[in-house]
Amino acid sequence: MSSKAMAEVKLHGTWASPFSQRVIWALKLKGIDYEYIEEDLANKSELLLSYNPVHKKIPVLVHGGKPIAESLVILEYIEETWPEAHPLLPHDAYDRANARFWVKVVSEENRALFLSYFGGTGEEQEKAAKDFLQRLKVIEEHGLGDKKFFGGDEINLVDICCGWLAYFFPVMEQVAGIKLLEPTTLPRLYEWAENFKDVPVIRENLPDLAKLKTHLSRNRERLLATATANNS
Amino acid sequence: MSSKAMAEVKLHGTWASPFSQRVIWALKLKGIDYEYIEEDLANKSELLLSYNPVHKKIPVLVHGGKPIAESLVILEYIEETWPEAHPLLPHDAYDRANARFWVKVVSEENRALFLSYFGGTGEEQEKAAKDFLQRLKVIEEHGLGDKKFFGGDEINLVDICCGWLAYFFPVMEQVAGIKLLEPTTLPRLYEWAENFKDVPVIRENLPDLAKLKTHLSRNRERLLATATANNS
Repeated sequence: MSSKAMAEVKLHGTWASPFSQRVIWALKLKGIDYEYIEEDLANKSELLLSYNPVHKKIPVLVHGGKPIAESLVILEYIEETWPEAHPLLPHDAYDRANARFWVKVVSEENRALFLSYFGGTGEEQEKAAKDFLQRLKVIEEHGLGDKKFFGGDEINLVDICCGWLAYFFPVMEQVAGIKLLEPTTLPRLYEWAENFKDVPVIRENLPDLAKLKTHLSRNRERLLATATANNS
Repeated sequence: MSSKAMAEVKLHGTWASPFSQRVIWALKLKGIDYEYIEEDLANKSELLLSYNPVHKKIPVLVHGGKPIAESLVILEYIEETWPEAHPLLPHDAYDRANARFWVKVVSEENRALFLSYFGGTGEEQEKAAKDFLQRLKVIEEHGLGDKKFFGGDEINLVDICCGWLAYFFPVMEQVAGIKLLEPTTLPRLYEWAENFKDVPVIRENLPDLAKLKTHLSRNRERLLATATANNS
């Protein structure tokens, strides 16, 4: 390993963020030592603001004093800097393109849909849940197929980016009160989630799920209160 | 060049799409021969639907019979498959991460903002224009800085992804009736746009701008008609 690759690594994140979590998993899978700095999103450190003046968001990886923002950009950087231990992308250019396509699909955010499902009620929430289920079915059918992991026998970048579905989403479902990822509706994706959480590095690096439930419950209450205020 | 890299290349696109345009520029910069297949978005080919069953969208690049969707994924594939001629990403991993960060920023879509600026009127449109200008200022200040191109002396992946601002956006501005990218408001980004369009490969590979204006004018009329129908 070059001296550059061995330079000091720091990660600015927040414990509840699936975006921080992706980076933590990648670093752990590669066996990279790093210092973790928990950020308070209500009172971000001067350092974070200077590292990511454009978005002012976590996660930020700092390697040898140089900051990198955006979780997908960080993950590509980690793969390029430490390619040997647990490769996160296939070697072949076409297979890499295919993996990057699925990283994009599973990372696509539809904030409106997400808020209607997680922060909505009644018909609006049911409609959003149905739409969300359709998206998950596409990921299951076209992305996962009959493989154990998106990466095949081993987890790769797609699994890491999809990983929030395995631990974060089930808590969201409980809080939102509508379950979608079940053995009856999404049998292969459900099994994938079980297998993913069974990978030692993933199992040993998950946030406290009870604490996450409290956190997400408060978030939903806040969303419902805002919706009520806007409608009154 | 390996026989694999030399396999037949086809591009499914539409003439007015900045996403097709990105791929055309990259192929032209690299000197890759390809066959271009114009898709009718109102009547997509069976081939396109089979190539991109998830999004059913252009562009799709087909290399040796294997399809790749999503313009950013295609661009990374082109760079990995034909790295020698006109590199689109820097060699150093940190510089690559920085370039990918800016590719992400300039490619971020805010559909609501975009529709309010391009398809809106009155106060709603003015507010969206102001927000859009702020985003462009961030790109100018933090991304471009005092460089000639985002890539330095030569255009790179960031310039290609930002390229729609140089030819497509000025037509949008005319149609929308609010100019934002001007020497007084965004001097460095304006100069970048002029320099970018001056690069021979870019200048020689632009759609017909008069035809684009007619196309975008029809789009705006349609958006205004929809808004009126929804409000009546």
